[in-house]
Amino acid sequence: MTDSPAGRHISAEIDEQPAVFARLLAARAATSEVASVIARRRPRFALLAARGSSDHAALYAKYLIEVLLELPAGLVSPSTTTLYGARPDLGDVLLITVSQSGGSPDLVEVTERARAAGALTVAVTNTAESDLSGVAELGVDVQAGPEVAVAATKTYSATLLALYLLVDAVRGGSGEHAAALPDLAAETLADSVEPVAEAVRRWRFVDRVVTTGRGFSSATAAEAALKLAETSYLSARSYSGADLLHGPVAAVDEETAVLAVAGQGAGGTATSSVLDVVGSRGADVVAVGSAAHTLTASVHIGVPATAEEVAPVIEVLPVQRLALGLSVARGFDPDRPRGLNKVTKTR
Amino acid sequence: MTDSPAGRHISAEIDEQPAVFARLLAARAATSEVASVIARRRPRFALLAARGSSDHAALYAKYLIEVLLELPAGLVSPSTTTLYGARPDLGDVLLITVSQSGGSPDLVEVTERARAAGALTVAVTNTAESDLSGVAELGVDVQAGPEVAVAATKTYSATLLALYLLVDAVRGGSGEHAAALPDLAAETLADSVEPVAEAVRRWRFVDRVVTTGRGFSSATAAEAALKLAETSYLSARSYSGADLLHGPVAAVDEETAVLAVAGQGAGGTATSSVLDVVGSRGADVVAVGSAAHTLTASVHIGVPATAEEVAPVIEVLPVQRLALGLSVARGFDPDRPRGLNKVTKTR
Repeated sequence: MTDSPAGRHISAEIDEQPAVFARLLAARAATSEVASVIARRRPRFALLAARGSSDHAALYAKYLIEVLLELPAGLVSPSTTTLYGARPDLGDVLLITVSQSGGSPDLVEVTERARAAGALTVAVTNTAESDLSGVAELGVDVQAGPEVAVAATKTYSATLLALYLLVDAVRGGSGEHAAALPDLAAETLADSVEPVAEAVRRWRFVDRVVTTGRGFSSATAAEAALKLAETSYLSARSYSGADLLHGPVAAVDEETAVLAVAGQGAGGTATSSVLDVVGSRGADVVAVGSAAHTLTASVHIGVPATAEEVAPVIEVLPVQRLALGLSVARGFDPDRPRGLNKVTKTR
Repeated sequence: MTDSPAGRHISAEIDEQPAVFARLLAARAATSEVASVIARRRPRFALLAARGSSDHAALYAKYLIEVLLELPAGLVSPSTTTLYGARPDLGDVLLITVSQSGGSPDLVEVTERARAAGALTVAVTNTAESDLSGVAELGVDVQAGPEVAVAATKTYSATLLALYLLVDAVRGGSGEHAAALPDLAAETLADSVEPVAEAVRRWRFVDRVVTTGRGFSSATAAEAALKLAETSYLSARSYSGADLLHGPVAAVDEETAVLAVAGQGAGGTATSSVLDVVGSRGADVVAVGSAAHTLTASVHIGVPATAEEVAPVIEVLPVQRLALGLSVARGFDPDRPRGLNKVTKTR
């Protein structure tokens, strides 16, 4: 390996995101074709299967499906199939498997068996020629291009956008809320440099981070916790605002850093009341999102306003920058987290 | 308040569990009646709604439903209903709402709306006269008796057992795997005193705990993390073994304590391979469960062997004792965690 600055790859991949979004929007006809097959089959339930960062994209998709399509949806526990061999009848079920590499053996197995059990199977990947794409009936390519850093950044946000375009097209939409995202992503990256640097300075020595968000933004909060854990080795845990008040808030104190994600809309408003409790316990709060300025926080990282359902696509950008900045400030290389490989072969 | 030793209530409630299980088994005819209604309606999909500890009971129920009934199942995000007003068609859906108090307004609202949308609704509570029981079509009383300590112990394990009896009865079972649980629970409590004390000594100064388990035991791992966070204010995070290897393992090092839950069967075997990775990173491992002795760990807390699907009912007992012991050793009162109330009123 040549000598290169820590985080060079992840930094470049974060900056690529506006272009990735534009490319995906330009190619959305392929997604619409998949969507029309789904619409014709009229599934009654949706299941989502994923691991790692993709699991947070799946959580976002669960909200999209429940709110925009009004279909009940659930996240799959792959082990019920792979460990226990359960064989449910999946007629009328839509299974969406999300995996940037398309190479996790457990997800391939879940998808293969679900298809055999009658589910309409869709693979959402960044690798159209993957094992997963081979076993699913339909495929969506998120077209983020090769990702060199181990920690997922552009493949995560591109997956969110692809899922939005897919779900919106199933209900006959044209993806209009997404049209401005390339420009808004560029604006987010430009405007967040200073506040992210301030958050990095404040959190240089932190050990304990809690992230929180509600509704669509709970996916962003979950991804933030994973990104901080895998690049800065922090003990980071994400809670939906409601769950946080059911127990874990007891562990929040002056030594806790809280990353709160709040967009405009119902989810952001709900997060505001959670933060009143968290703030009163002495935690240091950094707020991210289009409603960040409405929260009581030490640092506000604003994001341009969008429809609430697409906000996660750009909210995550300053979060990725924060993970990168903290990792480098703490002396690590976020491109090469210790103990991780790009494709994780679990069963 | 009178002066009483720290943890007096939670300690008594932990010790009550064998008697609670016996009472619930003796009264299982009522559960069977509810089960026969469910069986007659032939639901095609199950949804589970819960918060806090009950959410881990719901996770256990999700595995039971997927593996024993072979029905697809998902955990509800209450906010899609309460924040976004989604109105899915829930014909053919079984909604099980789990809440020891039966008093969370968001769960009452989710249940009410699901019933109006055609779901068969079942409330599993420790409070038969609750708001939740009032809105659900069917009810299961877990009969754990009043719980004084804020941290749930006997209501959690009783809820697991009630859910097992319910699901097993839906498939026409007689709950045979559960018959020995009162005796096995007493044995677990007696045999775990020494190893739990040893784990408390080792973990007196720990800050960072990761809990892990797979399959049915992932519910125990999740409950362990919550119990440690709410009584000892530890930064505790639970991962399914597979998810742990997808990123968070990077944050596991010599300063991390790992609680691994492993029963006999497929889930325990899968956990063993995860621990090989975790152990090589220098973490201190405490193993709990009937297959604990097969794992490389500093302390082994054994649990009598049972069918894998009922193991979580007794696996959690030494975990509760560990939370109690650590909390007292660290100078806290686990009966009164700071910042928590018995009923959490989130929306």
